[in-house]
Amino acid sequence: MPDAIQLMTNLTAATLIGDAPYGLIEDAAIAVADRRIAWVGKRSDLPQDLSARDAVDMGGRLVTPGLIDCHTHLVHGGNRAVEFEMRLNGASYEEIARAGGGIVSTVRATREASEDTLLREALRRADALIAEGVTTLEIKSGYGLDLETELRMLRVARAVMANRPVRVKTSFLGAHAVPAEYKGRDDAYIDEVCIPALRAAHAEGLVDAVDGFCEGIAFSPAQIARVFDMAQELGLPVKLHAEQLSNLGGAAMAAGYGALSADHIEYLDEAGVAAMAKAGTVAVLLPGAFYTLHETRMPPVQALRDRQVPIALATDANPGSSPLTSLLLTMNMGCTLFRLTPEEALRGVTANAARALGLSDVGTIAQAQRAELAVWDIEHPAELSYRIGFNPLHSRIFGEIA
Amino acid sequence: MPDAIQLMTNLTAATLIGDAPYGLIEDAAIAVADRRIAWVGKRSDLPQDLSARDAVDMGGRLVTPGLIDCHTHLVHGGNRAVEFEMRLNGASYEEIARAGGGIVSTVRATREASEDTLLREALRRADALIAEGVTTLEIKSGYGLDLETELRMLRVARAVMANRPVRVKTSFLGAHAVPAEYKGRDDAYIDEVCIPALRAAHAEGLVDAVDGFCEGIAFSPAQIARVFDMAQELGLPVKLHAEQLSNLGGAAMAAGYGALSADHIEYLDEAGVAAMAKAGTVAVLLPGAFYTLHETRMPPVQALRDRQVPIALATDANPGSSPLTSLLLTMNMGCTLFRLTPEEALRGVTANAARALGLSDVGTIAQAQRAELAVWDIEHPAELSYRIGFNPLHSRIFGEIA
Ligand SMILES: [Zn+2]
Ligand SMILES: [Zn+2]
Repeated sequence: MPDAIQLMTNLTAATLIGDAPYGLIEDAAIAVADRRIAWVGKRSDLPQDLSARDAVDMGGRLVTPGLIDCHTHLVHGGNRAVEFEMRLNGASYEEIARAGGGIVSTVRATREASEDTLLREALRRADALIAEGVTTLEIKSGYGLDLETELRMLRVARAVMANRPVRVKTSFLGAHAVPAEYKGRDDAYIDEVCIPALRAAHAEGLVDAVDGFCEGIAFSPAQIARVFDMAQELGLPVKLHAEQLSNLGGAAMAAGYGALSADHIEYLDEAGVAAMAKAGTVAVLLPGAFYTLHETRMPPVQALRDRQVPIALATDANPGSSPLTSLLLTMNMGCTLFRLTPEEALRGVTANAARALGLSDVGTIAQAQRAELAVWDIEHPAELSYRIGFNPLHSRIFGEIA
Repeated sequence: MPDAIQLMTNLTAATLIGDAPYGLIEDAAIAVADRRIAWVGKRSDLPQDLSARDAVDMGGRLVTPGLIDCHTHLVHGGNRAVEFEMRLNGASYEEIARAGGGIVSTVRATREASEDTLLREALRRADALIAEGVTTLEIKSGYGLDLETELRMLRVARAVMANRPVRVKTSFLGAHAVPAEYKGRDDAYIDEVCIPALRAAHAEGLVDAVDGFCEGIAFSPAQIARVFDMAQELGLPVKLHAEQLSNLGGAAMAAGYGALSADHIEYLDEAGVAAMAKAGTVAVLLPGAFYTLHETRMPPVQALRDRQVPIALATDANPGSSPLTSLLLTMNMGCTLFRLTPEEALRGVTANAARALGLSDVGTIAQAQRAELAVWDIEHPAELSYRIGFNPLHSRIFGEIA
């Protein structure tokens, strides 16, 4: 064992692996070396060379993997509070659109915002997530819809990682919406902006995955497929916003590309579930958007369970349909709105969220995994989903014990 | 003007009085002396003796009245996370009851808890509210259901105020449920426990108002009326949990006693609205319980507006039907679930919440009001309701500017 090893004892570990519920180990010990987990197990099973060391007493607290928010639009300009207010005062969608509302207002605000402004605003939101034990988060582009702004958003996403002790995975989401200047010319937008921007962003090393929005109000499966073909050519994994408001078969199409995840999927059908199961595609549920948009169509949770499709949960943090920056509240919403169990909710923001990002070194507490952990002032892991608007985080471990 | 006067400038004040939306004053100034607001208005209207003083620059931030949570069960033993998990794993209500779940589990845990334990747990929850700008909160008894524990709960509620810079108003809620030892003998419980406990608590100065739970699963209007008669004899104002799951006419009955508020009221009918309007009874909406219990019956918001019944919003923080300790999230839920406007939501946790507690010296920013304010890092007050799981509080003022 290396000398710089750190040992924690007097804790319960929710490892999220093994057969026990939550992979729970009571009276556990965790050893950390070189920012990795060197050992985890029952304290009574500690090897001699470890058990002889000084240990940090965790006060009987619960330790989980650091939380992972695997679907966010954290980088964007402006907010849509005034539009939110207009709608509640009875304004129609036309009136809001005429007042400059909707996604175009976020595109405009994002294009107008400097890199510094975008970063400052994104960090406020990232800090809210980090304060709840998040150690990895995904951030998408998709409010630029021109080459320059799409790249700026991704640079800001990388800068979030440079400025905070958190891992950021980026997704290129050029195929998020058709900007005003391409209205009615969706295919030209894909060819002239989206694909060139993807190539440029990839050349700059800004892209970890490629995403799209497949919906009647956005892009068709055929249009998304052209973007995914380019992703494949560049060797980038794909994921998709699919089956949120209708069933276009987007999830199955994405699964055909071996997609990491299909996200939203309220309207997913049996064939889509089967395709995802076959491809190992993660189902990312986004209850914040479901709640905000007053949706009533539930994602097919039981069918996903039956086919063993891994279920993840994420905030979908965005200024329009989900201005949500609490992953703990997302867990509660997953249970309350989608009837997930608290264990599924925790797995959904740890092990399965890691998988949705193509990460195999976070999301569980196991030897050789990164030592990215959350320490909670609670007794039972179900408390993480049960409470609403309460943050029991005691501390976060990002590579080493403070 | 007294010498110890403090002046704030460069702020927007949402005063919640006057004709402007939110009572908004742009480029405002607020002067504080003797823990009261000495002056508020346009900075350009500052009187000479004030404008000559050094001012604290508020950086253009928004200042609102300190938030008021007018309905909580913050003091209680234990939590119900395991029951939450059992339910999501498919357990029936009978199975949960057999496992000791439901309100009886909270009664047992509360009876078993020491005053110190109850206080420590209540302070964690109070701290969550205070961190969001809450300066006044209400706390009910009602998990003791015996004289000794009801009084202990109220003493702990008072101790919250002694331990934190926050105002606490107590409500005696002996008529919350029938304890196991009185099963089937509701009337005997009212006579032998509830009313004697109310007298004893009042004699100890522990009671600011008297509450009850009027519902098929709890007490009838006639039983509640006997408790309210005693409240009247003791000179205490009343309020009521009414019309949550059915319409028993509880709100109208309470209004007949000049009730401060009727709370929940999803099933309130026109006659109930009219009775509340006539009595000046505040409608306290509790969207956290609506959300947790998957209710679908909406409170009669438009009827309340039409009759000018003041609408308040509160967390209903309790371990069973609303384990919610965020008043900001409650505002978002009020808008999202009950279609309140953001202005109604803010009024509901300030001016109207004060009224629901019988307080006239907090809830607005006006001369002679208590200087209990929240300072927010936002531009527009609608942002308080728009965001979900984000706390933009910059600082809280409780009597004096720090
Ligand atoms: Zn999204
Ligand atoms: Zn209540």
